[in-house]
Amino acid sequence: MKNAFYAQSGGVTAVINASACGLIEAARKVPDRIGTVYAGRNGILGALTEDLIDTSKDSDAAIAALRYTPSGAFGSCRHKLKGLEESQAEYQRLIDVFQAHNIGYFFYNGGGDSQDTAYKVSQVSEKLGYPITCIGIPKTVDNDLPITDNCPGFGSVAKYVAVSTLEASLDVASMCSTSTKVFILEVMGRHAGWIAAAGALAVSKTHDIPLLILFPEVTFNRTAFLEQVKEKVESHGYCSVVVSEGIRGVNGKFLSEAGEKDAFGHAQLGGTAPVIADLVKNALGHKYHWAVADYLQRAARHIASKTDVDQAYAMGKAALEFALQGKNAIMPIIVRKSSAPYRWAIGSVDLAKVANVEKMLPQEYISEDGFGITEACREYLQPLIEGEDYPPFRNGLPQYARLKNASVEKRLAETFSLTG
Amino acid sequence: MKNAFYAQSGGVTAVINASACGLIEAARKVPDRIGTVYAGRNGILGALTEDLIDTSKDSDAAIAALRYTPSGAFGSCRHKLKGLEESQAEYQRLIDVFQAHNIGYFFYNGGGDSQDTAYKVSQVSEKLGYPITCIGIPKTVDNDLPITDNCPGFGSVAKYVAVSTLEASLDVASMCSTSTKVFILEVMGRHAGWIAAAGALAVSKTHDIPLLILFPEVTFNRTAFLEQVKEKVESHGYCSVVVSEGIRGVNGKFLSEAGEKDAFGHAQLGGTAPVIADLVKNALGHKYHWAVADYLQRAARHIASKTDVDQAYAMGKAALEFALQGKNAIMPIIVRKSSAPYRWAIGSVDLAKVANVEKMLPQEYISEDGFGITEACREYLQPLIEGEDYPPFRNGLPQYARLKNASVEKRLAETFSLTG
Repeated sequence: MKNAFYAQSGGVTAVINASACGLIEAARKVPDRIGTVYAGRNGILGALTEDLIDTSKDSDAAIAALRYTPSGAFGSCRHKLKGLEESQAEYQRLIDVFQAHNIGYFFYNGGGDSQDTAYKVSQVSEKLGYPITCIGIPKTVDNDLPITDNCPGFGSVAKYVAVSTLEASLDVASMCSTSTKVFILEVMGRHAGWIAAAGALAVSKTHDIPLLILFPEVTFNRTAFLEQVKEKVESHGYCSVVVSEGIRGVNGKFLSEAGEKDAFGHAQLGGTAPVIADLVKNALGHKYHWAVADYLQRAARHIASKTDVDQAYAMGKAALEFALQGKNAIMPIIVRKSSAPYRWAIGSVDLAKVANVEKMLPQEYISEDGFGITEACREYLQPLIEGEDYPPFRNGLPQYARLKNASVEKRLAETFSLTG
Repeated sequence: MKNAFYAQSGGVTAVINASACGLIEAARKVPDRIGTVYAGRNGILGALTEDLIDTSKDSDAAIAALRYTPSGAFGSCRHKLKGLEESQAEYQRLIDVFQAHNIGYFFYNGGGDSQDTAYKVSQVSEKLGYPITCIGIPKTVDNDLPITDNCPGFGSVAKYVAVSTLEASLDVASMCSTSTKVFILEVMGRHAGWIAAAGALAVSKTHDIPLLILFPEVTFNRTAFLEQVKEKVESHGYCSVVVSEGIRGVNGKFLSEAGEKDAFGHAQLGGTAPVIADLVKNALGHKYHWAVADYLQRAARHIASKTDVDQAYAMGKAALEFALQGKNAIMPIIVRKSSAPYRWAIGSVDLAKVANVEKMLPQEYISEDGFGITEACREYLQPLIEGEDYPPFRNGLPQYARLKNASVEKRLAETFSLTG
């Protein structure tokens, strides 16, 4: 009987631990088929440095609490494996560690880069003659993995952005007669505008919010934008703007990079929202407020989407089940059966088809003027934010889990240097 | 039988509408003693311009929904009445409007400036010989009103900041081995550090977060701060910082004003968090992330404190009850009877004692090194964030109310110009 290796990779989310929970709980149900689930401390680094966590040291209750705990409970990393030829030593080391700990299953939970890593490990397994079942588990707030209908992690950020846009817009609406007239919320999404698009869900029949969205897929048009702001303020008294961090001007540069031109060589402080705010102030004279949600948006487990939590859990569970069925080099995916009522099922896709492919917001999801979403986009997004799944609270705060993360004794004599 | 005037003033909060709800529901229970509750559209401006809202046009269900709707449902304003001598015309106009609509009660819901307005109206009532009962209703996220133990609006922001600090810190902790090591959250509080202090509630026995707080009451000490960051990153691998927007350097200037020195005369983009982030990057080289919560923190009704909602409601209700008891020129307050278990009662204070007094974070609430809170501060803050009071959700979003806000027919021939 083989042990399993599980690790978390890339930017963490409100629900990546729910995937861990789904996988570990599924493994605990078949103790005759899966040995110990070892987690990599800080993603693939844990495998490379033989820094493994024995998840069996944590109680069933602690593992169950992962379902409602944001962040990466075992630590994550940003480390992309190079090609098989370039980095033979790294791959050999992985195999050595797997062999030393009798690991026959490799589960890697992450976005596009991480699926690339999972795919490479599956290839090296063949080449180096060490059999290991490799399964990727999808995760990314950016929602940019291909083939799967959506990515675990995204629905909760989308809900956070929609709720925050609604709440802040009601605030500005209250203030606009004598004070703030334009509110700008900066959200994540360096290349894909999925998260920004979710801001539009705040608009409804009840709340007719004058909202502009700035997508990274649309080149920023200063004149058209300012005209829209002017018009919204005239018609509604105020205007809300949701801007993706990754919008670019006609010169192809990120708007947040503008400050780099400072003749004194002052370091760029970053932030697209303040650049937009400054533009509005200078051109139209309106008082503004701006917010940058940054990590708050992807860590906000307190307002997670139940759909998202359920899907993240299901992906972890399915990963284990696929592995036990003998499938290899695949990633479980979410297949949409119907939008209203929302119905979905679990499918799978070859890792080779997923690695290094980014799914942008399609043109037909962006309104003609470039500042909003279409009905098709709304229909796609709506079910992903549905349902609440509050964590338990104590003393006014969510009771998020903290695992023991007990280290597994090292079995290899050699240490491995990550430098280079 | 007299009608009542109610208005919202200054920056809005997640629970100011709960005070409106408390007042209007209490008034509806005594239709034989109080006529119609008129709300001022956009605060005192509604009275000056005779732009009144007839709250009786909204159903009991709509008024009940105010309890869980953030922002100012009738519109707020930033407009400070001048002294009685300076601005005779404004005061005469208020009396004219009150008289035209048979208004005998004036309820003003706001912070320090607003209590000053309520106090002035009570004085002018005597001087101009028009009897009107004036009651202030406390509201401010800044928690800086004197005498009351705390201010409605603060508890919910405090809960938002504590929850967000916890969630973002777990995120950074996951990322710090290969990526972000310092996370900076900017919160409100231009003069008083109550909101920043609430970030410290994220630290617990379960979650030993390496956290630094930068208070406006403490002059920013660059060297000491950087030493602390360095130490925290060495001991824990990462560091979280909660910074009040109002911190100042040794020159007495806001840190966010630093950019104003730009030799090109570029407009200041604002934000204290990016200034701190830049400092950390330049001095220590750590990768950082920063967030600016801005309006999100005070509008976040989805994560409001139940204690806060209950108190906001109680203050509105008490305001009406005090008025019916014949009390005048007072503000209901929260009196703490005990911290653990938390017990509080309703008291009252003369408006003369409240107007224009700011309550800063006392020295004994700030830890000796200036970067944290004391046990006394924790004991004070803890009960204020306790309890959850989720709004109802539909389609994944809170079902916040939108009132009809039906206008009352004008009765005065003259319009009133606000200019000057």
